[in-house]
Amino acid sequence: MSLDSKIAARLKRNPEGLVPAIAQQFDTGEVLMLAWMNDEALHRTLTTGRATYWSRSRGEFWVKGDTSGHVQHVKAVALDCDGDTVLVKVDQVGAACHTGDRTCFDADQLQIPLG
Amino acid sequence: MSLDSKIAARLKRNPEGLVPAIAQQFDTGEVLMLAWMNDEALHRTLTTGRATYWSRSRGEFWVKGDTSGHVQHVKAVALDCDGDTVLVKVDQVGAACHTGDRTCFDADQLQIPLG
Repeated sequence: MSLDSKIAARLKRNPEGLVPAIAQQFDTGEVLMLAWMNDEALHRTLTTGRATYWSRSRGEFWVKGDTSGHVQHVKAVALDCDGDTVLVKVDQVGAACHTGDRTCFDADQLQIPLG
Repeated sequence: MSLDSKIAARLKRNPEGLVPAIAQQFDTGEVLMLAWMNDEALHRTLTTGRATYWSRSRGEFWVKGDTSGHVQHVKAVALDCDGDTVLVKVDQVGAACHTGDRTCFDADQLQIPLG
């Protein structure tokens, strides 16, 4: 089993064979995290219903929540207009971030010196 | 003028000196698009209130909306937990996508063979 050939033909991967994948909470719209997928990770995400990434640091597939219990149940998946980014709408169990925060963007708000 | 040194110290850039930037509609939560920023683009985004990216295809700064009129007014900016992704909450004027769609993820929903 591998990624549907019509989807694979539309994907534009970086030199490492990866595309960025944005995980979004399907009902609240929160942006939870950004991770990376190769073809097989996208295939597994589409067919298992569990968001699955490629861990660049560990060099292995990463089924989100397998270690932490903080599973992402997949609700919808879309490619962007030029096929180089994936949006994964999920139902996030618990915290998306390894720090324990709900999202990976909660801790580091930048000051914007605007009126 | 350049990017605040404390922010620059936290940024983890790819080999091209870029980080992915997710643009999200601040009130509805829609994920609009993903583009790329270098330090200067982030600096300009934080200081001008207009979302500004680095166009990898054109090799130049890209002030979103300068050509199309589809401006992104910046409401908030956050780094993720490991400093390698930026989330930009914006008020998007008109369509975010060059195709005329509201978001770059509207056109290509993938079938997920789930129950």
